[in-house]
Amino acid sequence: MKGRILVCRVSVIGGDLRQLTLAELMAKDGYDVNVIGFGENSMSSKYKTTNDINDVCESDIIILPMPVTLDFKTLNAPFEEKPIKLSVLSEKIKKGALILGGRISKEVIKVFKNNKCIDYYNREELMIKNAVPTAEGAIEIAMEETPITLKDSNCLVIGYGRIGKVLSALLKSLGANVCVSARKYSDLAWIDVNGYKSVHNDNLKTVANNFDLIFNTAPALILDEEILKTISPDCVVIDLASKPGGVDFEKAQDLGLKVIWALSLPGKCAPISSGKIIKETILNILHEEGV
Amino acid sequence: MKGRILVCRVSVIGGDLRQLTLAELMAKDGYDVNVIGFGENSMSSKYKTTNDINDVCESDIIILPMPVTLDFKTLNAPFEEKPIKLSVLSEKIKKGALILGGRISKEVIKVFKNNKCIDYYNREELMIKNAVPTAEGAIEIAMEETPITLKDSNCLVIGYGRIGKVLSALLKSLGANVCVSARKYSDLAWIDVNGYKSVHNDNLKTVANNFDLIFNTAPALILDEEILKTISPDCVVIDLASKPGGVDFEKAQDLGLKVIWALSLPGKCAPISSGKIIKETILNILHEEGV
Amino acid sequence: MKGRILVCRVSVIGGDLRQLTLAELMAKDGYDVNVIGFGENSMSSKYKTTNDINDVCESDIIILPMPVTLDFKTLNAPFEEKPIKLSVLSEKIKKGALILGGRISKEVIKVFKNNKCIDYYNREELMIKNAVPTAEGAIEIAMEETPITLKDSNCLVIGYGRIGKVLSALLKSLGANVCVSARKYSDLAWIDVNGYKSVHNDNLKTVANNFDLIFNTAPALILDEEILKTISPDCVVIDLASKPGGVDFEKAQDLGLKVIWALSLPGKCAPISSGKIIKETILNILHEEGV
Amino acid sequence: MKGRILVCRVSVIGGDLRQLTLAELMAKDGYDVNVIGFGENSMSSKYKTTNDINDVCESDIIILPMPVTLDFKTLNAPFEEKPIKLSVLSEKIKKGALILGGRISKEVIKVFKNNKCIDYYNREELMIKNAVPTAEGAIEIAMEETPITLKDSNCLVIGYGRIGKVLSALLKSLGANVCVSARKYSDLAWIDVNGYKSVHNDNLKTVANNFDLIFNTAPALILDEEILKTISPDCVVIDLASKPGGVDFEKAQDLGLKVIWALSLPGKCAPISSGKIIKETILNILHEEGV
Repeated sequence: MKGRILVCRVSVIGGDLRQLTLAELMAKDGYDVNVIGFGENSMSSKYKTTNDINDVCESDIIILPMPVTLDFKTLNAPFEEKPIKLSVLSEKIKKGALILGGRISKEVIKVFKNNKCIDYYNREELMIKNAVPTAEGAIEIAMEETPITLKDSNCLVIGYGRIGKVLSALLKSLGANVCVSARKYSDLAWIDVNGYKSVHNDNLKTVANNFDLIFNTAPALILDEEILKTISPDCVVIDLASKPGGVDFEKAQDLGLKVIWALSLPGKCAPISSGKIIKETILNILHEEGV
Repeated sequence: MKGRILVCRVSVIGGDLRQLTLAELMAKDGYDVNVIGFGENSMSSKYKTTNDINDVCESDIIILPMPVTLDFKTLNAPFEEKPIKLSVLSEKIKKGALILGGRISKEVIKVFKNNKCIDYYNREELMIKNAVPTAEGAIEIAMEETPITLKDSNCLVIGYGRIGKVLSALLKSLGANVCVSARKYSDLAWIDVNGYKSVHNDNLKTVANNFDLIFNTAPALILDEEILKTISPDCVVIDLASKPGGVDFEKAQDLGLKVIWALSLPGKCAPISSGKIIKETILNILHEEGV
Repeated sequence: MKGRILVCRVSVIGGDLRQLTLAELMAKDGYDVNVIGFGENSMSSKYKTTNDINDVCESDIIILPMPVTLDFKTLNAPFEEKPIKLSVLSEKIKKGALILGGRISKEVIKVFKNNKCIDYYNREELMIKNAVPTAEGAIEIAMEETPITLKDSNCLVIGYGRIGKVLSALLKSLGANVCVSARKYSDLAWIDVNGYKSVHNDNLKTVANNFDLIFNTAPALILDEEILKTISPDCVVIDLASKPGGVDFEKAQDLGLKVIWALSLPGKCAPISSGKIIKETILNILHEEGV
Repeated sequence: MKGRILVCRVSVIGGDLRQLTLAELMAKDGYDVNVIGFGENSMSSKYKTTNDINDVCESDIIILPMPVTLDFKTLNAPFEEKPIKLSVLSEKIKKGALILGGRISKEVIKVFKNNKCIDYYNREELMIKNAVPTAEGAIEIAMEETPITLKDSNCLVIGYGRIGKVLSALLKSLGANVCVSARKYSDLAWIDVNGYKSVHNDNLKTVANNFDLIFNTAPALILDEEILKTISPDCVVIDLASKPGGVDFEKAQDLGLKVIWALSLPGKCAPISSGKIIKETILNILHEEGV
């Protein structure tokens, strides 16, 4: 085999526009890509679309969607009418092929136990890059839900992790007055350095009444009854933290507050950019794996 | 009358949330404000709501909506069930009272011929400030209509007037690659200085195929058939220029392009901020008039 | 002559690093450039350096420095030991050649009366682009002269013309609290829209005590005794307006204030960028002249 | 003692303008501040200046400079003519008093062994905030040392730690084309997200020839002979990493490159802002210590 350059064969199986985008981008990069499980929806000239599960056996890399499955039995393939059983798929994959999937659970690993499985969705660089479509989605919601411009609006961002960092930067660049809350002195220092007002989480209740918009990015219940009671009735609260979220929804409803729970924004608001981010992450994994 | 400070009496008659906002803001500033023609919708504690057209006679300043009328006979008062005839209103206004309205036509001036009428909607400072809600509205539409993030998107802004200036700044601050087209060397110099790629309008057809989003802000027909033919089928075109607009809609439709004609964004997307802008403009007018 | 492409012959005569830069850039663009009057300082391989005034006779375009002359008799050529007489130069220039120079006075036009003279230094696009090196130079001075960071400093920019616009944007982007003063409602609206605090020139004396740095860009005497008296003794005043400037220097000295008169910053702080700007402007002129 | 509020007594001993600034700011905050060891240079009305080392005995908090000593025997007190022996100072400090100093070495801790010593200079929040004066100082140097504007200049920032983050943001906001190099995928993701070009450290040699300015912030020797050889002769290299720095100075000199080693910029370029940062850090320490 010496002297030959082997083109890596890739199967992209199931998922939505994100997976079709990554298929197209990988094909552009020179991979030999076959797309399966998208019904009539895959029609780029950049990749093959056999839609035949048997073709999986020729692939060195199997890319599964995010999440891989919703019911632990069939593949998450919303564009495909016929269900694709995980157990059937598993049998078609050749020995030594690498499986990449998003949020791979223990159950899924068990099904594909004959192959190495890597989760691309818990990679730090993917989560960092996903903060951009998440923050843009939050801003889209904020624009829709308020009768004011973001410019000159008073915004609170709770938490200064990945999403908090990107969101507060975007809000400030749109001309909002941005206050960010955090707990650690080093986070508070960064908040100052980056030009926002900083407030310690413990002092939120003394300032919470000032805001037109509150974005929660922290996974802990910070907007409790005590703080919710102080919030202006015109304030819109957007919760970006995954379940159970950072807002006491029941109390908020009792108080008549407008709370929006915004989850999975990258796939909803910017599937093509999301697909690009997954593709870049997969290339990093392949580089690390020496593929 | 010596020694007395006279509080200026203001009637705000007709219009929508913008006018109610300006009523509230003027009341906060110390004006004696009465609100008429909003049905059940006016309920701020900041101003009086008599909803009695006869009370107009006591006012020194009459603030009419934008536009003043849609049919040249009755006031533009969408929140009020009973029509308010301009001729009836005119008779109630006292001699010497100042009338302020938006887009006051010749016909309207004729009806109110016994009073001085000033148009607050053609003031330069209002049009400048309105560029902010317009640009934010355009960004909201762009976010909704594209499957990509604005970050790293390729955007073209046609025209570098008020809206072009604000919009290109917002797009750049969100991380888009922004190209702005104009005709004058001085505009092109400003575009360079402000950090955008510049392109002369005459050269648009050579670059138009590169964009994910095209925003037209120029009142002339620039996106003609020749240019439209070169645009990518995934590109979204948002026309912000008032009628007749800058896009050949018929040709665009024939070509299957997505074109969105976005008009009157300030009142639609940010009525409260718009009301604040009208109020600031009215204060400038009153200052100039020595009221 | 058909079939031949004529290369435009250009002489760049006198001036400093700016002129050598434009010579090099024009040569890169394909012009046939000869450089004269720089002594030993011209050594780019991009252009010819004959340093022989007789070679001027072959040039279609003659580019003179900015300013053309300091004494109305000899060319402004600081790098050349032997003076170049304008009258001698004039005789060498061929009929029909176009002369381009910076700040061409009536006296100079008289000397070169047999040729068309165009001033590149009063072009709007050059003045706009020169606002960048001017503003950067002002920031360099501000950094040197104050014991504080620009971040979180309180800055006043007087005037919202070309330099005021660029300077206030840079200061804000560095994290300063920026207040801009102007006189027209439309300028004040732009100041608001662009995210600065706005103050009417008439109200300067009520706010002038708050600033760590005051930059004057207005050509009128705005910082008079009354205002200077209110300024903090630690405040640094940087006057960017050309003579007579906008600061009462004598009074400022009496009051012990630190005032820096900063003129001609583009040539001093960024001669290469300045040369590039002159070159771009000259290309615009040649385009307009059909050369 | 009930009913009495105890004002905390603070001695600020030695140092430069930074320490005088923090003395003034702590006095403004209500602390009872005495200043010692500044000769004639302490003259604010905000604090006492006894300049008598014996007064130290009454203080609950002793604030020493940064660094505490240069010779391990006497206090670092550049404004004071008479040397202050650490051993003498140590004897005057009362039992239970808290000592705060910058870069406290083992030797210093030994001298002050009867008291608790805390180093305010290795606190994370101080190092984060000091990145601002450091980055501004680097920009001041860059402006002084180059004949071009930072706008449109090609800048490389090596390393994406505290200084790398702040510096690249400032350069970008000034209109530079900013490329940042790092090693970790997560850092490279942040570099992308924040709008810079990213390059892996391993690939620096393929891009290093493109830059007008290179800023090193990494503590490792990255700019070795191989890379230095590729750099443009007009490029200015500014090394912000503490000794031994990240540039092979000897090789750089051999190659005729302009390399500037810029250390301790906060104290040099912005002593008052530096003093403010030290004060904020000290307040955090006192809060943690329950003082």
